[in-house]
Amino acid sequence: QKMGFVKPVWSLPRLPAILNAHMHRFQFTAIMLVSHIVFIVLFGVYVSFDELFAMPSAANDNTYLNTKYPYYMGTHVIIFIGFAYLMSFLKRYGYSAISINMLLACLTIEWAVLCRGLFSKQFAETGTISLNIDHLLHADFSAACILITMGVVLGKLSPTQYVIMTLIEVPISQATELLCRDVYKINDAGGSIVVHVFGAYFGIALSLAFARKTQRAHEHDASLYHTDMFAMLGTLFIFVNWPSLNAATTVTAEAHHRAIINTHLSLVGCTLATFLVCPIFEPRKKFNMVQIANSTLAGGVAIGTCANVVLDPILSLTIGSVAGVISVLGYIYLTPYLSARLALHDTCGLHNLHGMPGILAGLFSAVMAVAYPKERFGASLASIYPAMASNSTGTGESQTESGQALMQLAGLGTVLGVSIISGALTGIFLRLPCINQVRSEEYFADGDYFHTPDDYEFTTKISGKVRHEHVLGHGDKTSSVQQRIIHHDQEDSSA
Amino acid sequence: QKMGFVKPVWSLPRLPAILNAHMHRFQFTAIMLVSHIVFIVLFGVYVSFDELFAMPSAANDNTYLNTKYPYYMGTHVIIFIGFAYLMSFLKRYGYSAISINMLLACLTIEWAVLCRGLFSKQFAETGTISLNIDHLLHADFSAACILITMGVVLGKLSPTQYVIMTLIEVPISQATELLCRDVYKINDAGGSIVVHVFGAYFGIALSLAFARKTQRAHEHDASLYHTDMFAMLGTLFIFVNWPSLNAATTVTAEAHHRAIINTHLSLVGCTLATFLVCPIFEPRKKFNMVQIANSTLAGGVAIGTCANVVLDPILSLTIGSVAGVISVLGYIYLTPYLSARLALHDTCGLHNLHGMPGILAGLFSAVMAVAYPKERFGASLASIYPAMASNSTGTGESQTESGQALMQLAGLGTVLGVSIISGALTGIFLRLPCINQVRSEEYFADGDYFHTPDDYEFTTKISGKVRHEHVLGHGDKTSSVQQRIIHHDQEDSSA
Amino acid sequence: QKMGFVKPVWSLPRLPAILNAHMHRFQFTAIMLVSHIVFIVLFGVYVSFDELFAMPSAANDNTYLNTKYPYYMGTHVIIFIGFAYLMSFLKRYGYSAISINMLLACLTIEWAVLCRGLFSKQFAETGTISLNIDHLLHADFSAACILITMGVVLGKLSPTQYVIMTLIEVPISQATELLCRDVYKINDAGGSIVVHVFGAYFGIALSLAFARKTQRAHEHDASLYHTDMFAMLGTLFIFVNWPSLNAATTVTAEAHHRAIINTHLSLVGCTLATFLVCPIFEPRKKFNMVQIANSTLAGGVAIGTCANVVLDPILSLTIGSVAGVISVLGYIYLTPYLSARLALHDTCGLHNLHGMPGILAGLFSAVMAVAYPKERFGASLASIYPAMASNSTGTGESQTESGQALMQLAGLGTVLGVSIISGALTGIFLRLPCINQVRSEEYFADGDYFHTPDDYEFTTKISGKVRHEHVLGHGDKTSSVQQRIIHHDQEDSSA
Repeated sequence: QKMGFVKPVWSLPRLPAILNAHMHRFQFTAIMLVSHIVFIVLFGVYVSFDELFAMPSAANDNTYLNTKYPYYMGTHVIIFIGFAYLMSFLKRYGYSAISINMLLACLTIEWAVLCRGLFSKQFAETGTISLNIDHLLHADFSAACILITMGVVLGKLSPTQYVIMTLIEVPISQATELLCRDVYKINDAGGSIVVHVFGAYFGIALSLAFARKTQRAHEHDASLYHTDMFAMLGTLFIFVNWPSLNAATTVTAEAHHRAIINTHLSLVGCTLATFLVCPIFEPRKKFNMVQIANSTLAGGVAIGTCANVVLDPILSLTIGSVAGVISVLGYIYLTPYLSARLALHDTCGLHNLHGMPGILAGLFSAVMAVAYPKERFGASLASIYPAMASNSTGTGESQTESGQALMQLAGLGTVLGVSIISGALTGIFLRLPCINQVRSEEYFADGDYFHTPDDYEFTTKISGKVRHEHVLGHGDKTSSVQQRIIHHDQEDSSA
Repeated sequence: QKMGFVKPVWSLPRLPAILNAHMHRFQFTAIMLVSHIVFIVLFGVYVSFDELFAMPSAANDNTYLNTKYPYYMGTHVIIFIGFAYLMSFLKRYGYSAISINMLLACLTIEWAVLCRGLFSKQFAETGTISLNIDHLLHADFSAACILITMGVVLGKLSPTQYVIMTLIEVPISQATELLCRDVYKINDAGGSIVVHVFGAYFGIALSLAFARKTQRAHEHDASLYHTDMFAMLGTLFIFVNWPSLNAATTVTAEAHHRAIINTHLSLVGCTLATFLVCPIFEPRKKFNMVQIANSTLAGGVAIGTCANVVLDPILSLTIGSVAGVISVLGYIYLTPYLSARLALHDTCGLHNLHGMPGILAGLFSAVMAVAYPKERFGASLASIYPAMASNSTGTGESQTESGQALMQLAGLGTVLGVSIISGALTGIFLRLPCINQVRSEEYFADGDYFHTPDDYEFTTKISGKVRHEHVLGHGDKTSSVQQRIIHHDQEDSSA
Repeated sequence: QKMGFVKPVWSLPRLPAILNAHMHRFQFTAIMLVSHIVFIVLFGVYVSFDELFAMPSAANDNTYLNTKYPYYMGTHVIIFIGFAYLMSFLKRYGYSAISINMLLACLTIEWAVLCRGLFSKQFAETGTISLNIDHLLHADFSAACILITMGVVLGKLSPTQYVIMTLIEVPISQATELLCRDVYKINDAGGSIVVHVFGAYFGIALSLAFARKTQRAHEHDASLYHTDMFAMLGTLFIFVNWPSLNAATTVTAEAHHRAIINTHLSLVGCTLATFLVCPIFEPRKKFNMVQIANSTLAGGVAIGTCANVVLDPILSLTIGSVAGVISVLGYIYLTPYLSARLALHDTCGLHNLHGMPGILAGLFSAVMAVAYPKERFGASLASIYPAMASNSTGTGESQTESGQALMQLAGLGTVLGVSIISGALTGIFLRLPCINQVRSEEYFADGDYFHTPDDYEFTTKISGKVRHEHVLGHGDKTSSVQQRIIHHDQEDSSA
């Protein structure tokens, strides 16, 4: 019995049974093969190196690269290591979390370079996409969006479904981002609106399409002691590198400097708020690793849009603290409420880490647009709010502060609308029975798609059920005191 | 029964019982809430961005940031990832080690920016603290000091006590550092004196105040196979990034270059010395992961003060090797001796990693101050030993080589004295029964303060007691040979 | 019974028995002590800081360091963290993999700085080795070569043997590299020929000398669920930092930029190819973590030699994809074949990650040398192919494109020949019974050389044998359904 690519309960009636069976088995291979080959061909036809930086004709000047590269590397670490390990907390889904994260990130990088290039003005004018490190950086941003969506539906999609989801979400999110940036001319330095809000609500809408009772309180939807330690590794790599990510797309030196400090302060405020609030509302006044691993990062989202704007350190500390409080309360109250009312299952609780803090970032950016008079930004206004800078071509009036604030809100609303609608439609599509589906008893588990080692069952399932007496047996010589240990913690342990 | 915030055996007699009980439950929340709000207010009143680097008026020049940022990031990785995972080796205290590390680092960053700013000349003159990336770097240094102290008392304090400890230690250590740097005008590039020695001896004095028999040979004071692999992750991230930390505060390009190479060579020498010496003195001539995880880093401490001074590569290799030997011998002979004589319990053995190697660094810096004649340092003398540079204001004579050596020793002595006295007083204060205390049976364990997953008891306690026969039971079909395996290693396994 | 340094089955007949026994016990110490002291003395006699960058006379210009340091740090992370954790997948050999990796890397750094210096023209002229960060970078490259060899023989050598192997391999590989670079004047930016091919084939030849039936299907030669998660950490740190490594030795800004992008694209292509091909050929169409952890990196090797040359992004995507396919097929078909025919045991399967992809890189570099006409490289030709640049000294004609291609092939052939011969001879030498050997029942296990914690036997051996019934015993109250779970995955789980 091949379990890897399981046949759904009901199958497409119009296809002969044998073709249908083969389709299921080779779906993943077929989609990957076609998309990878098409992408390579498109790279061959359209993509060439940027003459300014990466061709022999370029000047031998490392300044640009010296500035960008550390930010790019920090972003890269967040994508490939931070997200991967943050999602590895599920006790039976560690291989998938880390591997599928890598797969989708790579797929997105190819596809986003192409989409962003093909949608660009430069392509409309020259017919080519000229590749430099900035494109790879934006492709990493796009990967963040996809991986946030992955976090919401973590453990509920098959590899085939994840890949199809990626192929659909990348062009839609890229187009929405270009609309916000080039038409609305919003400022969104760290992509809290165009990346975090998009990824989170696309995922939530998609997850709603998959809502099933079997997901709630699924026995696999929990962590192990050591998988939470892996998860914290993801948290800390995101925490440490987030200033790089938020500074990466800013343009001027002072904006880099400010984005780094604001992001760091917001994360510090958020972390302290998380530790402060968590034991107040948690049962038994204990800390919960779910919130320590996730809510401590909400500050990076909340400051993301305005990391380059905020001129008062107290504001970044405060917005981070607010985000931390919202996120913790979201985990404790909102997630169970949405689960009960909408049957919404959000595996990593990313609505509390990327969703609400992302909306907070968007609202905050509207306030910030009117908070500082134009003249305080001086020359750097063109890089922060291009529409607010006095137009050097002299064609017209520049955007006002309140106009910019409206545009920030318009961007947020657009992203919310597009992500929810496209996510829901993608979810409905992915439920088609002709697409490989995860068996409900194997939700949040690697076994159907990965070879697992001998200890898989024991480590990920049995170890949590062992009670002292069973292991030490009848003939045991250890003291009877040990055998009668009562495990106070067993009742309150949670994912 | 709420176990998280346990009532001590005897309570404050003057408070009504009910108020007392509530105080214990909400102590952590109250202290965190008050300090976080006070810090935010102080940030609002006093802290603004540095006009030179982070405000719209700043020049668009990335040079400063391009130089500083990689060193800052390396330091940041050491603080948030290196220390966290290095301390995660205890089998039942991984959540606490990683989480409390994050909490204290964030708390220290807020508090140290304020303390350093409020104590500075600039504040005395202008009444404001102007924030740039250099302040955050120094705040990370201060966090290192606090986290070293945390490592000594790891597993023996409650979250409340850790937070109070931090609130007390930060201003004292910052004031001592400013005394050493601005009055004694010592050179201490990587902070081996003002950070490592202070943190270690503050922790040792604090730990002495807590010395109890129940800490010695506590059943939880041991590692698991996988927690030592997590610990090595901490070790290696510290190892790799230490050159960045030691170069971060140096001023000239050649000092950066030299600090990087000297630190790296010292760590290489120290690592080789550790592997060389460890099997000579260990029982059964085997390697011990405690020393491989800790002693290999002693070279970074020993070269820290003079990483920017040493002009001969052989010296950095040698001082690293000496530090490695001292550290290994400290773990094998001194730690048990101090435990037996003073009942001193040093959870991570940081006396051997930061304490003695830090003193070595201080002594070495006195030798180095007289080892090279002034003229060899030329223009960079002002950045290495400001007091030794000929005073451009012409007000007086510059410090002599031997005078500088005495100042280095005076700094070391001052740090030792202040840290031991303040650490002991802090320890006595933290033992007050009105402050939440860890139950002695739950030393080195997460369960009282963290929600733990189902496998917590099994993974962290039972797994080490399982013998083959018990698990495979009576009806087992595996070969009898397997069942009769004799576990040679069980007798010599150690933490 | 001292198990750490075990006596071989037959001993040197000419030495008195007691001297022989002591030799075995103190071999490791003696070799380490002598080599470390000799290296320190040689550093003292020959090595001094580079006047241009690291001495007080140097200009205060950070440009060089700002460009080099991030690449150096990336390389450093690959060596000390990437390789260490990638090799930590074996269930009972995690301590050794991580620790011995650290030991050999440090030993190589000392020894390679000396070898490279002593073999250099500068030394022949001036009698000194002037140390800067570039030397440390090349020492890290040399460490990569040694650690690749270590990966092939992982678990089969004693610490003493690893150290002797390092002492032999470093000078031979450094001499071969200098021959290729300075005489053949090959381009090999990321060292795919001189580092990866050398290390892999040296290891394979060495492993052949050790080929024993007991290595094949050894019960310890497998992973655990959590050790594969540690291994992926190694994979991802190598993945993320590989662009830094391949760019580190390139000279011009455009070559840095291109090397980064080409390496990244090649890794992306390779990762997608791995995920695409793996389930086609694996049993049950499942993903195998061995290939996800290793084959995804083959693209970094394949592009390594020409990362600075390739001018068309499609080529780097394609060569990466080809490398991924070759690597996956190598793991599935070639490794078992070589094991059956030659009894070759390649623990990490590095023939498929560094061996064949390295040869591919060499062949590809010959094609690339003729693919682009000289004029496309313009001024940067001197840094890419010194021999092809028109000779400024006017002594003769410059190398032609086809001549350069032949030189690339000559370099590849030389490296293959030297590595295989020297590896085989080293293997024969290391089999000498007077050298400490690993007991065949303790292959791939830490216990003979490391103190292990209480759970060592359970976690690394017993946990994989536990079946549900045994643990939950007779008196268990859980549902009988749970007890009758049939573990479908047990038969197909593999290392």
